[in-house]
Amino acid sequence: MADGLSINLATIRKQCDMRQAVDACLRHGITAIAPWRDQVAAIGLPEAVRLVKDNALTVTGLCRGGMFPAADAAGRAAALDDNRRAVDEAAALGADCLVLVVGGLPAGSKDIAGARAMVEEGIAALAEHARAARMPLAIEPLHPMYAADRACVNTLAHALDICDAVGEGVGVAVDVYHVWWDPDLARQIARAGERILAHHICDWLVPTTDLLLDRGMMGDGVIDLAGIRAMVEAAGFTGHQEVEIFSAENWWLKPADEVLATCVERYATINAVPV
Amino acid sequence: MADGLSINLATIRKQCDMRQAVDACLRHGITAIAPWRDQVAAIGLPEAVRLVKDNALTVTGLCRGGMFPAADAAGRAAALDDNRRAVDEAAALGADCLVLVVGGLPAGSKDIAGARAMVEEGIAALAEHARAARMPLAIEPLHPMYAADRACVNTLAHALDICDAVGEGVGVAVDVYHVWWDPDLARQIARAGERILAHHICDWLVPTTDLLLDRGMMGDGVIDLAGIRAMVEAAGFTGHQEVEIFSAENWWLKPADEVLATCVERYATINAVPV
Repeated sequence: MADGLSINLATIRKQCDMRQAVDACLRHGITAIAPWRDQVAAIGLPEAVRLVKDNALTVTGLCRGGMFPAADAAGRAAALDDNRRAVDEAAALGADCLVLVVGGLPAGSKDIAGARAMVEEGIAALAEHARAARMPLAIEPLHPMYAADRACVNTLAHALDICDAVGEGVGVAVDVYHVWWDPDLARQIARAGERILAHHICDWLVPTTDLLLDRGMMGDGVIDLAGIRAMVEAAGFTGHQEVEIFSAENWWLKPADEVLATCVERYATINAVPV
Repeated sequence: MADGLSINLATIRKQCDMRQAVDACLRHGITAIAPWRDQVAAIGLPEAVRLVKDNALTVTGLCRGGMFPAADAAGRAAALDDNRRAVDEAAALGADCLVLVVGGLPAGSKDIAGARAMVEEGIAALAEHARAARMPLAIEPLHPMYAADRACVNTLAHALDICDAVGEGVGVAVDVYHVWWDPDLARQIARAGERILAHHICDWLVPTTDLLLDRGMMGDGVIDLAGIRAMVEAAGFTGHQEVEIFSAENWWLKPADEVLATCVERYATINAVPV
């Protein structure tokens, strides 16, 4: 059964546009998705909204806002403008949240503390618009291997510190790929509580051959998915588990139906573990 | 000037055996090294000891002990035996410390908390032998991207928690490559204080093309080396900065003299920053 399962459409981005991806999900009984902004833009926002409404889909998140740091004020202002548009797109789609991949170091910078300050300022500035649009912002801490070029928020603790500072309307996305290694994970998930807005799943392969595009299917790696699910649900999260797999050399090369059938099958094994 | 500079011999492992590496270091005025056990074994421990003594070298560390977790008790006992031999080799070489890369998950395991418990037990068991040999153990937290297969101690905070638990004779190795991203770094370095037994330097490249073998030369990446050096020295560390670069596609392909000349030159730029 696919109840409670969502597919982040990056998982089949090489095989399908958003229209094809929705059809494929529906063939497998999957009625929850999380599209990326470029996938929405490729078919146009009105058509994406129509697809969601006509099929009564749940949108577990829109990927992604963020990328706040920039070398100058004009760059940061442009990033903020783009984030406001992302909030509006997420609202149009009726998404549960806008996922924020916060950005890394501006070009040429070695000042990670400075980048982190820009991120917090950016989220605080965006939050006002997001609250008005009733669109929750989900800060996604990314694995520390992305600290330089994608996201300088690398632990759940840090993401929650930003939530504490910014206040209402801001929560976190807990992606097992990014946080599974954290010795402080159980404590921080409990601290997050109902601020957990999304729960992404996949697996960490051994060996991992590429920093970005070698994520594994659930069950093929070393992450204790059932254990993390239990923590997240004990903290109060009742939403979908959203599969997000970037896999240039494996899953992106297979037919979308094979990928989705495998997602459903593997999801059932996580589901079956008593929590 | 190469005062205060040490070369971890992994940096030129493809070009030189230990004898050749020492000769190369001496040509560049470098009188501190950190060999790996396989490099020592290749020429024999007595010859390695003779090289160190005849040239009055400082040995800033022996790499490496560790790899404590194993699927069964026999495996863990074998690991401990091997670690005791590593302590003895480090003592014979007069090393400042034995560096511990603690090991990851046993084959087939998804229980990272269990692996961490095995690590702490292993270090506690080894510490007795190490104290008798007067050989400090330096726990090296490794970047979280190595949590599964190399080291499940991935933050300085966790390494220091183990130090606190095990007690005398155990400290940490602070390698900038592994810890530069940590939002808690300044606080943990201050907490470490005189338990900092080694300070390894290199750089984080953007992009990084391989999880293990694409480390950068100081200055070619995004790490604030002068800033971290300042923190480490403010905490009381007065030892060498040890260059450790694994670089399959770049520095391992260059002549050792070019690599070492570059190390000396780049080290001087870190040195020149007021701390």
